[in-house]
Amino acid sequence: MSYAFDCIQLKRRTFLRGTVALLGYLVGQTNNANAQADLLPSWNDGPIKQSIVNFVSDVTTPGLPTFVPAAERLATFDNDGTLWAEQPIYFQFAFTMDRLKALVSQHPDWKVTQPFKGAIDGDLNALMQSGEKGVLEILAATHAGVTTDAFADVVLDWLATARHPRFDWLYTDLVYQPMRELLAYLRGKDFKTYIVSGGGVEFMRPWVSKVYGVPPEQVVGSSGTVKFELGPDGVPVLMKEAKVEFINDGPGKPVGINRFIGRRPILAFGNSDGDQQMLEWTAAGQGARFMGLIRHTDAEREWAYDRVSRVGKLDKALDKANAEGWTVVDMKRDWRTIFVRERPSSRQTIK
Amino acid sequence: MSYAFDCIQLKRRTFLRGTVALLGYLVGQTNNANAQADLLPSWNDGPIKQSIVNFVSDVTTPGLPTFVPAAERLATFDNDGTLWAEQPIYFQFAFTMDRLKALVSQHPDWKVTQPFKGAIDGDLNALMQSGEKGVLEILAATHAGVTTDAFADVVLDWLATARHPRFDWLYTDLVYQPMRELLAYLRGKDFKTYIVSGGGVEFMRPWVSKVYGVPPEQVVGSSGTVKFELGPDGVPVLMKEAKVEFINDGPGKPVGINRFIGRRPILAFGNSDGDQQMLEWTAAGQGARFMGLIRHTDAEREWAYDRVSRVGKLDKALDKANAEGWTVVDMKRDWRTIFVRERPSSRQTIK
Repeated sequence: MSYAFDCIQLKRRTFLRGTVALLGYLVGQTNNANAQADLLPSWNDGPIKQSIVNFVSDVTTPGLPTFVPAAERLATFDNDGTLWAEQPIYFQFAFTMDRLKALVSQHPDWKVTQPFKGAIDGDLNALMQSGEKGVLEILAATHAGVTTDAFADVVLDWLATARHPRFDWLYTDLVYQPMRELLAYLRGKDFKTYIVSGGGVEFMRPWVSKVYGVPPEQVVGSSGTVKFELGPDGVPVLMKEAKVEFINDGPGKPVGINRFIGRRPILAFGNSDGDQQMLEWTAAGQGARFMGLIRHTDAEREWAYDRVSRVGKLDKALDKANAEGWTVVDMKRDWRTIFVRERPSSRQTIK
Repeated sequence: MSYAFDCIQLKRRTFLRGTVALLGYLVGQTNNANAQADLLPSWNDGPIKQSIVNFVSDVTTPGLPTFVPAAERLATFDNDGTLWAEQPIYFQFAFTMDRLKALVSQHPDWKVTQPFKGAIDGDLNALMQSGEKGVLEILAATHAGVTTDAFADVVLDWLATARHPRFDWLYTDLVYQPMRELLAYLRGKDFKTYIVSGGGVEFMRPWVSKVYGVPPEQVVGSSGTVKFELGPDGVPVLMKEAKVEFINDGPGKPVGINRFIGRRPILAFGNSDGDQQMLEWTAAGQGARFMGLIRHTDAEREWAYDRVSRVGKLDKALDKANAEGWTVVDMKRDWRTIFVRERPSSRQTIK
């Protein structure tokens, strides 16, 4: 079940929903949850899909005690493993490895200095094996020394050409179709959809509008510092520096939500332990709430991993979800379709 | 004039505007700039008001080369001295002084420790005379040690009761009516209106929605750090800490815009040197732009100050505006009405 009500509230809600449905019928309006469910065709019918539709109905039906005004309908989504895949390594790390190789001729010291040397010599795992400090150092170095505008172009060029090692698809082809439908469904109900990711905000903003329908100003993420400077032509630029500013992960997610959004979501979706505090923060608000966790259970169509995974570990948050009655999506059981390869395939169309 | 075009572009724009107007007439639509101007009744007719209306027409009329899609119509406004008054001290400093006095019984050390002692003993000027470091220390201390939710209540309670020393009005009665009209006018043209202020983001967010029609997630400001914690009842809270995180002023404004919004505004309004870089950053984008500066020229109805003012100094930015042809609003000349005392007067209505 998606969110908890005691019996009295449940009865009252059911009664009111019946009354509102009857009134709607009498004045010629429909309030049919099954009709709305057609907006989620990639979700299999069942209690999970129904819990989403019920929640949306509860918070958008005027007159119900669970009604939430449109301005307060904020929904936050983790990105890696929640909106697109994250195996065998976070896609931003694949980008980082490619960027490291592209930049090494300008940074000959990287060939002899750790953690860069190991990452350059090694396979895709090397970046992750250098530990958090090493990863952050490589991320900062490979994402710095360019203007914010130039970096956006680098990201778009990479997304238009780089291929996922298992599927040989563009990385944006590994976006989950059910989640794209869910984002659109919520926006159709006047929700404001946000991405709240441990990934870099400047890595996501250039393409999320086209791929997810989420405007760049609704992306909360990790960031490096930027500096306002006058360029050689006297035109001001923002230069990316090799310094980590904020890590939007774990307890950082509610902090990031507070910093960027300033109010609490009523719906949040994640897939790993790094999302637990975002879901707890969402759950702790007053009124109807929806907390969703995605379990990667489909080794054939996607991947199957949880408690011991190096990437996207889902352990404590799963226990919490089970204890609190949060909605746990089983990818294999609940998603009819996972990927639809009709993503934009060129840099122009992504932008 | 608001923004620069060379002669060829001007002629082309005028020709196209004429063509579009003719087409609009033929299909029964109106595109009459004078009709639109009625949405700004507190602005006197003249070149300043006309430059605003012309800009909005240019970026919202399909077919013009200056047209900007709705999703990219971002407008950023400084707060202190731009949307509401800022004399004799920034209103958040008045709040800070009141908070200092309210909290001193819990912090007896403040009575004997600088910069607190001076601020407590002195008049309203003491806070500003303690220098930037002292001001930040007092701001951090008086804004910390509470949850974000509790702090919002403290701010709302203060705004519902505190009185401005000169007018004996609530501080929200010192909002500029012409700017409220401008915000609403822009939103009516599908602009997304943002506040980009040196003031504290947690000080502004609780009330800007009611007072300016700007939702809390569209406020960019200075901030202290917050920490995710479990409260005594196990419910998670965000606790405000006495540590400055970000100063959203001067060169920090384009940095803050990049961090929170992630794309560049096409219209920006400020009133002081602290807004210069925001206006430069806005001006440096491609396409039609509007950069506005407000000059405080009306000692009778508001205040008159500019190049040597301690609060809201306008010196270098004024030179820049004159050199670049930015729009400079003369409050005495251009504003028919400055204040309208129909602001909500209780905590409930402000919230």
